[in-house]
Amino acid sequence: MSLKTELMAKLDAAQPEMIKIRRHLHKYPELSFHEEKTAAYIKAFYQNLDCQITNYGEGYGFAVEISGGQPGPKLALRADFDALAVQEDNDLPFKSVNPGVMHACGHDGHTAYLMVLAKALIELKDRLHGSIRVIHQNAEEVSPGGAKGMVADGVLDGVDNVIGLHVMTSMPTGSIGYHLNETQTGRANFTITFTGKGGHASMPHLSNDAIVSGSYFVTALQTVVSRRIDPFDTASVTIGSFDGNGSYNAIKESVTLKGDVRVMKETTRKTVRSQIEQIAHGIEAMFGVRAEIDYDDNYPVLVNDPQLTTSVMETIKAAKIPELTQVFDCGPQDPSEDFAYFAQHTPSCFFYVGCQTSDGANHPHHSPDFMLNEDALIIAAKSAGAAVLGYLDQSK
Amino acid sequence: MSLKTELMAKLDAAQPEMIKIRRHLHKYPELSFHEEKTAAYIKAFYQNLDCQITNYGEGYGFAVEISGGQPGPKLALRADFDALAVQEDNDLPFKSVNPGVMHACGHDGHTAYLMVLAKALIELKDRLHGSIRVIHQNAEEVSPGGAKGMVADGVLDGVDNVIGLHVMTSMPTGSIGYHLNETQTGRANFTITFTGKGGHASMPHLSNDAIVSGSYFVTALQTVVSRRIDPFDTASVTIGSFDGNGSYNAIKESVTLKGDVRVMKETTRKTVRSQIEQIAHGIEAMFGVRAEIDYDDNYPVLVNDPQLTTSVMETIKAAKIPELTQVFDCGPQDPSEDFAYFAQHTPSCFFYVGCQTSDGANHPHHSPDFMLNEDALIIAAKSAGAAVLGYLDQSK
Amino acid sequence: MSLKTELMAKLDAAQPEMIKIRRHLHKYPELSFHEEKTAAYIKAFYQNLDCQITNYGEGYGFAVEISGGQPGPKLALRADFDALAVQEDNDLPFKSVNPGVMHACGHDGHTAYLMVLAKALIELKDRLHGSIRVIHQNAEEVSPGGAKGMVADGVLDGVDNVIGLHVMTSMPTGSIGYHLNETQTGRANFTITFTGKGGHASMPHLSNDAIVSGSYFVTALQTVVSRRIDPFDTASVTIGSFDGNGSYNAIKESVTLKGDVRVMKETTRKTVRSQIEQIAHGIEAMFGVRAEIDYDDNYPVLVNDPQLTTSVMETIKAAKIPELTQVFDCGPQDPSEDFAYFAQHTPSCFFYVGCQTSDGANHPHHSPDFMLNEDALIIAAKSAGAAVLGYLDQSK
Amino acid sequence: MSLKTELMAKLDAAQPEMIKIRRHLHKYPELSFHEEKTAAYIKAFYQNLDCQITNYGEGYGFAVEISGGQPGPKLALRADFDALAVQEDNDLPFKSVNPGVMHACGHDGHTAYLMVLAKALIELKDRLHGSIRVIHQNAEEVSPGGAKGMVADGVLDGVDNVIGLHVMTSMPTGSIGYHLNETQTGRANFTITFTGKGGHASMPHLSNDAIVSGSYFVTALQTVVSRRIDPFDTASVTIGSFDGNGSYNAIKESVTLKGDVRVMKETTRKTVRSQIEQIAHGIEAMFGVRAEIDYDDNYPVLVNDPQLTTSVMETIKAAKIPELTQVFDCGPQDPSEDFAYFAQHTPSCFFYVGCQTSDGANHPHHSPDFMLNEDALIIAAKSAGAAVLGYLDQSK
Repeated sequence: MSLKTELMAKLDAAQPEMIKIRRHLHKYPELSFHEEKTAAYIKAFYQNLDCQITNYGEGYGFAVEISGGQPGPKLALRADFDALAVQEDNDLPFKSVNPGVMHACGHDGHTAYLMVLAKALIELKDRLHGSIRVIHQNAEEVSPGGAKGMVADGVLDGVDNVIGLHVMTSMPTGSIGYHLNETQTGRANFTITFTGKGGHASMPHLSNDAIVSGSYFVTALQTVVSRRIDPFDTASVTIGSFDGNGSYNAIKESVTLKGDVRVMKETTRKTVRSQIEQIAHGIEAMFGVRAEIDYDDNYPVLVNDPQLTTSVMETIKAAKIPELTQVFDCGPQDPSEDFAYFAQHTPSCFFYVGCQTSDGANHPHHSPDFMLNEDALIIAAKSAGAAVLGYLDQSK
Repeated sequence: MSLKTELMAKLDAAQPEMIKIRRHLHKYPELSFHEEKTAAYIKAFYQNLDCQITNYGEGYGFAVEISGGQPGPKLALRADFDALAVQEDNDLPFKSVNPGVMHACGHDGHTAYLMVLAKALIELKDRLHGSIRVIHQNAEEVSPGGAKGMVADGVLDGVDNVIGLHVMTSMPTGSIGYHLNETQTGRANFTITFTGKGGHASMPHLSNDAIVSGSYFVTALQTVVSRRIDPFDTASVTIGSFDGNGSYNAIKESVTLKGDVRVMKETTRKTVRSQIEQIAHGIEAMFGVRAEIDYDDNYPVLVNDPQLTTSVMETIKAAKIPELTQVFDCGPQDPSEDFAYFAQHTPSCFFYVGCQTSDGANHPHHSPDFMLNEDALIIAAKSAGAAVLGYLDQSK
Repeated sequence: MSLKTELMAKLDAAQPEMIKIRRHLHKYPELSFHEEKTAAYIKAFYQNLDCQITNYGEGYGFAVEISGGQPGPKLALRADFDALAVQEDNDLPFKSVNPGVMHACGHDGHTAYLMVLAKALIELKDRLHGSIRVIHQNAEEVSPGGAKGMVADGVLDGVDNVIGLHVMTSMPTGSIGYHLNETQTGRANFTITFTGKGGHASMPHLSNDAIVSGSYFVTALQTVVSRRIDPFDTASVTIGSFDGNGSYNAIKESVTLKGDVRVMKETTRKTVRSQIEQIAHGIEAMFGVRAEIDYDDNYPVLVNDPQLTTSVMETIKAAKIPELTQVFDCGPQDPSEDFAYFAQHTPSCFFYVGCQTSDGANHPHHSPDFMLNEDALIIAAKSAGAAVLGYLDQSK
Repeated sequence: MSLKTELMAKLDAAQPEMIKIRRHLHKYPELSFHEEKTAAYIKAFYQNLDCQITNYGEGYGFAVEISGGQPGPKLALRADFDALAVQEDNDLPFKSVNPGVMHACGHDGHTAYLMVLAKALIELKDRLHGSIRVIHQNAEEVSPGGAKGMVADGVLDGVDNVIGLHVMTSMPTGSIGYHLNETQTGRANFTITFTGKGGHASMPHLSNDAIVSGSYFVTALQTVVSRRIDPFDTASVTIGSFDGNGSYNAIKESVTLKGDVRVMKETTRKTVRSQIEQIAHGIEAMFGVRAEIDYDDNYPVLVNDPQLTTSVMETIKAAKIPELTQVFDCGPQDPSEDFAYFAQHTPSCFFYVGCQTSDGANHPHHSPDFMLNEDALIIAAKSAGAAVLGYLDQSK
């Protein structure tokens, strides 16, 4: 029996376990950087299996080393395991029991499929040409994210390539989406406080109105995207918070704005940052206020290696997974993802596994009624499994 | 002994009582529309005096009728008695004992001088040509103010003229300031909520950014004063609150702005209001958001009757009050004052009694360290007393 | 016969001559700084009269010295004699024969009344206590104006006071208007060129759009009046020209804006200037463009000396001039006037002589159908004449 | 000898003629819609050749029909022949002799290569499987362009596909660039006049300042690209002209703005248009001015048919043209091109032939020193020729 046939058979057999694990994780979600019990639960799963566990970074992230019996490259698989500060609004037997915390992005599914796949690969490891590092990553949702610290701590040392995936409620179950090169936006966040001089509303000339400065800043900020960015390039700049709460009859002394930036190129990131800072300094010069800027360039652009990604997709298609009906280029995706730190370090492939509950169903990620079709888990496991075998095979 | 000489003597004798009353009021301040004990205290003062007390309006305001022995006109004198939501920061034996409440505008002084003057006039009333209505007004500080309701309830019925005054820490003790015609600004307040559509910061095209609408509104609002108002006229428009508090990565669905308007003409009030509303509707049309406007035209412009005011000032100067060193045109004043409702109804005179504690001292009204020079009280009492006698005399 | 009676009789007798002179000037108008023939015509009038003529300044302005027979102060009277670049649209026997040039502001009337008054005073000069300097000023209409240079050249040396007047089509014939202290606005003009980088409209990121910079400048400029000026003070800032003429598909490299400033206080002039410059520099910092600013503080605020003006008005009223029905405080006036340079140097009085052709007639100054009621000329002459005699009388 | 070998030999032999034609056209350029002599010159070339000439549209455009000897599809080839309103600044023996008119975009080269290629195809036509329609298009440079009218008049009737090309000074000679799907921007132009009310700069409240309205419009317009367009989509909106020329001291009654829009999707074109109109109407509502909008949606997005284009590029690569060193995806191009009308009607391929004079040389299209490397012409002819033969071959 071929290795692939055997792996698929093991995954089919483990489907109930996979669902059980996912439901356990779903019931006991933990917030980013606080996933103590989650990590312990996953580690317990590996306890009696033939593999090595190593912690990476300051958080609860760790990796499971599966050493193949034959020489070959080292491939990493990554799944994230943190939950969100969302109060679940679904009626489920395994509904979150932790108030205000919910696996509302599907990381429970990522972890469940990868645990089961890892176990199957461990059982077959003597026949593998190369080895596998299974990365269980903490804290994907909250800047600075878990990936950055794990990479800094060496989780990719010796790794040739990384594969990751995300379930997607916006794509039909049975489909896999991918994109080459720039695939998810890079992100920056910033806080700017403009400080003028408070006073009585009837005497504006004795004050320096910070709300006026903040408002002109917002209007001038529109030019960053409209005039400074190549129309064929991508950038967005949003002021998500304008805190100028005060009273009717007093002129505000200071206002604090919070902003969000998305880009698809690291050069564009630099342009946007310098323009935002320049406009803030222009407001200082223009109105005689003080601008304090705290600018945080965080998640990089997620760049898929085009060769690796093309190859992974070809392998998956060739695997003729019965539950998989479609592999398509889904185009770039707006949100940011800290898998980008892995991809920045080592050529990687990140793809999307459709998990829509039914045609047209709308359970957006991060919403209180987020819900995934558990049929997607076996597709994730088989696709990733096929990709692993194909990858190791190619290097023979 | 002339009536005037006798009145002045009585006031001199009552100076200690005046100060005692003021300190009592200062120690037990009450917020606007909650001055229950203050009103009771004042009424108790009048209990055994030959006068009639009548309540006016829904609040604690009332008037004391002093019927002169001789026929003549009816003159009203007004003092306000409410305190502010300010925590006193002075170290005084009679410091406010009510936490967060303070006579930080001098209304305690107004009431004290007027009680003592009223008592003296009652004692002399048989010789008065005409009668006096002493108005003890509640709730000057908080819109809609006490004056409006008292006027609506008839407190000025039968009254020919009204005189009021305000102590001023910005003017030297010993001085009296006045201005003819438009003297204090009229005021309006408004709240505007712009509602767009919330969404993820990385997908602005699926949202409608309310912070952007609010900011463009603020910049366009500057044209009301800069382009719509006669440069020789007076207007100010301030956005004192821009409540757009949110997070970095979400586009705000709605923001709420609070504004303040000051004018010196009722026609200008109308122009400003229609322009503000027009600009808000322009923002609706421009950005496809919804604007909910709650516009409150409150205190009128305080207009001093020029004949009455000139006459009152001439009388005061002629009275040769020893403590009074200067009577001057102090120009118009920025703040608004609900005495304006009296002046709108009946020709009135409102003037300012300097109460600076010493040269260059800075104890601004409404501040936690507001402090008045109690020497100003006798000047207030004698000036108002002289004005009363002069007024009644002229109509003989 | 009193001096005043005699003067009035002379003026009455000279009314036809006054009108003849005015019509001559009207027919042959000359532009500011080009009034060669006008000056020669006026000088010819004085040729055989007992007076001294002296040129002042670089232009055609000059003064006529009338030395009184008795000792006393020296009073200057001023009239301007330049015309405007306007094509006359009236049908008159004495319509302008110079294409595109017109006495559309009434300076022909000013000069005519003053010539005739001067002649009468010369004839009476032996009885005058003091002397008169009649100033025939060139170039009032165009910055820098004729007054500045004449003052610099000594036209006010030895002069104690100056009186001037302006005919006003907006006031009824028979009326005289005046105002104390600040009476006409001071003015500044400025030119700002913003230079960015031109380019193709489809590639904004390779250019730096000067129209965008200029537009944000205009919106920010509104805050000067709305936020920096005391609401009780006066200022206007207008961009009268935005020269950004270009084509559809090219991004403009530079735009040139022209601005106008009006104030009623010299301190406000400084505030406005520094704010405009600050905002222009803010635009430079904000958008990375270059701003070239050419700022010209020109005509000062015209400040009437209150004592002199009150006294002149009292004298005029007391003169019981039959054609004069009303002397009133007309409030401050929007336009600027280079008589302000005289008033800045020497206490002065500038007043307004109504010259409306009939009730409700609308012939605005500077318009092609400007028209004055010639009956106003005798009122101007008699008023100014009465003022001269009263002034000299007081100093006896 | 294969058809292809024969065609290539003919083209090699005709290279001198091709250059001679190009130089003739270069010397006698004619403006768009005025190419009378140019059209006559081209038609004369075909006079004794076995083909049919038909005029299409209202201008000078026409097509040359080459009927193949064998049945098959009909392929159109298109070249444009108009010149620009540019004064040539090159020193060339064949420099433009028409003042202010220049072939500054390379259309002379397009026409020259296509004439020579057409002649060769006519000579080989009996062996062609299908027929060729050679489109000599007028007026590419000026809206509405020649293509639109020619298409409306039937120039594509019976045509299965269209191929066109543009020489590019920004690409090395020896290279061919292409892009699939959306390849050049679609365009719209608009003119907006805002009309308020003129007046004197010192009296803004009596006017309605059109420069202020125009400036706020420009700042609000930035939100179209920054907030209304998907960050992954393409759009630019430029105000290329802000005509508000006036004087210092008058408030402008009206200003006229000209704008340019570029998009890569027809749905985006609609969004941009509706947003621009909405913002203009918002300015009307906000400031009480009138906005007259003249909006012209002109050149469509140029969309290359991906199958056809891929096939054409494969054919060209397979032809092993010795002068051709590189065929690459050059990405989308900013400018607009009215070939888009052909591509909108019939599946088409438009590609780019590098014609840089030497490494790093900078002779931008539309500039007075535009210059092309004539070596590019044989590459154009051979590439298009190979594409034709390959295309007809495939349909056998």
